[in-house]
Amino acid sequence: MPELRKDPIIGRWVIVATERAKKPDQLIAPAQQEFPQEKVCPFCEGHESSTPPEIYAVRPKHTTANTAGWELRVIPSLTPLLKIEGNLERRGRGLYDIMNGIGAHEVVIETNQHIANMADLKEEQIAKILTCYIERIIDLEKDHRFKYVLVFKNYGWSAGGGKVRHTRSQIIATPVNPKRVKEELVGARRYYENHERCIYCDLIEQELASQDRVILDIDGFIAIVPFASRFPFEVWILPKKHSPDFVALDSGVRLELAKVIKKVLSKLKKGLNDPVYNYVLHTAPFRREKAGYWKSVDYDYHWHIEIIPRLTRVAGFEWGTGFYICPVTPEDSAKFLREVNEA
Amino acid sequence: MPELRKDPIIGRWVIVATERAKKPDQLIAPAQQEFPQEKVCPFCEGHESSTPPEIYAVRPKHTTANTAGWELRVIPSLTPLLKIEGNLERRGRGLYDIMNGIGAHEVVIETNQHIANMADLKEEQIAKILTCYIERIIDLEKDHRFKYVLVFKNYGWSAGGGKVRHTRSQIIATPVNPKRVKEELVGARRYYENHERCIYCDLIEQELASQDRVILDIDGFIAIVPFASRFPFEVWILPKKHSPDFVALDSGVRLELAKVIKKVLSKLKKGLNDPVYNYVLHTAPFRREKAGYWKSVDYDYHWHIEIIPRLTRVAGFEWGTGFYICPVTPEDSAKFLREVNEA
Repeated sequence: MPELRKDPIIGRWVIVATERAKKPDQLIAPAQQEFPQEKVCPFCEGHESSTPPEIYAVRPKHTTANTAGWELRVIPSLTPLLKIEGNLERRGRGLYDIMNGIGAHEVVIETNQHIANMADLKEEQIAKILTCYIERIIDLEKDHRFKYVLVFKNYGWSAGGGKVRHTRSQIIATPVNPKRVKEELVGARRYYENHERCIYCDLIEQELASQDRVILDIDGFIAIVPFASRFPFEVWILPKKHSPDFVALDSGVRLELAKVIKKVLSKLKKGLNDPVYNYVLHTAPFRREKAGYWKSVDYDYHWHIEIIPRLTRVAGFEWGTGFYICPVTPEDSAKFLREVNEA
Repeated sequence: MPELRKDPIIGRWVIVATERAKKPDQLIAPAQQEFPQEKVCPFCEGHESSTPPEIYAVRPKHTTANTAGWELRVIPSLTPLLKIEGNLERRGRGLYDIMNGIGAHEVVIETNQHIANMADLKEEQIAKILTCYIERIIDLEKDHRFKYVLVFKNYGWSAGGGKVRHTRSQIIATPVNPKRVKEELVGARRYYENHERCIYCDLIEQELASQDRVILDIDGFIAIVPFASRFPFEVWILPKKHSPDFVALDSGVRLELAKVIKKVLSKLKKGLNDPVYNYVLHTAPFRREKAGYWKSVDYDYHWHIEIIPRLTRVAGFEWGTGFYICPVTPEDSAKFLREVNEA
């Protein structure tokens, strides 16, 4: 019997298609389509002049900006989706709302080495990337035109990545709250009003008790396949301790989180033949009007990272209805990933 | 300057990326990947024994069910996402909601000829398909376990279609209201409460006045590219006269609607090199508890068909945030489609 499962936070129903279920190993990705060999990678060390000037870098003090010697760089996107200069000029046009596409669009070059998959970076390097995300969010938050910062990664061409292989993340500051994040905030608030508890905290407790969908439980972090997954091998990484805002992540635990990220990405790479994937950081939006409030431990949101390997085709059905069909049970996905020896 | 546009019904913001905008003809689809030639198409006339027994058919009275002579057949899906037999048994599991995957999943074989694209059917045949949708919805509505009927089409492999080319639609009856439809209902209701008018009716009036995004305006129907399109060449077909429920579509105007559908699909086929596409019918859910209410002209929803050609890659950004990036302005998409001579 197929199952219908409801995401407890945003209320989306998902069909877990057990009848036409696939065994997890039936979904192992075909080898990635090869790109034409790049002559010169613009993101590698020594090619700093191929990119716009850096906004941020991890580099020894004696080195000069936009020259070799760095460990990580952030540059403005060459093809920005939103523009940094100008005013929002929010306006109506009859029924419609419109504003100028003001925002920031930055690219985090995650390493000076020509490495494609973040899974292949050292934990220490991933920790530096996390620190970079935090420092960029703090900086972008100062711009009062912005309401949210999206941190995400498109790994591989068919996941929306560009033609350069070099591993990178993207940071987009937006003048509006993204719909999906808003839905989670509303859902978490509603639960909090009823229970005076964070729904994500309760979810983590239930997952830890059952263990059915837990992939990793290391130090302060947990990696799970969500109960109402939209996609096979969808993974969420959450801090076990309540924390609404990723920016508040203590520097002492960043290496722990980096370890969990590396393990999850390595399990996907090894178990599923290096599939293309996306990840997105979901954190609380800026709440300047209530300074300090969102840092409160009582606040009802709980930051997390969502990772989606791209193994299935998405039909119009999903887009047209918001109704997803997951052809592998979350429990099977979790078991499969748990058993991949990523080391 | 890129633009941020808000869908007036569900409140989703979309980035219209004018800076990296593509000219419409840069998105013309590559030739469709060829399937291995089918030895025997199970959906062609004469092969009725290759399918499960028909649920519905348009056939002369003197012919026998499941034999040749039909013009259109509906069969149960061979790989149903939901099962017709059983009870919902809605239950909790800690935080989570779960119910049995009860529902109906039917396939409409749209013609007895081996034709792949609905664009190539005659208007009269498309009108019969519309009548079939209506009759199947009316029949499925009698089953009190169901709340909604989804009618949709996945044309082409990468749009989620199967390995058989023969043109068909799918009908899925679900025991829950799909998220996206619910959002539209809530948005339309909110507008109605403020204005005592249907938001779709106001939107149609504004589109007809500006003409910027109108593709076709024939008799009682309009085809537009929506103001806050998620995808290039996204098309909505709406009845110009207020009508919440597709089932109430007068038999006298079905041929008109068929004409509009054929013209839109033909424009996509001819202008964009036969791209894969999806379409979804959005209509009011069953409202048995308020019999007659949803048929009232005052009711705030407005049925429509959404058509999405699949020309761009969707990145995790979109899934993770609900924030879409449309690389062609809706006005350019509309102009391009308006100018394609589909005849």
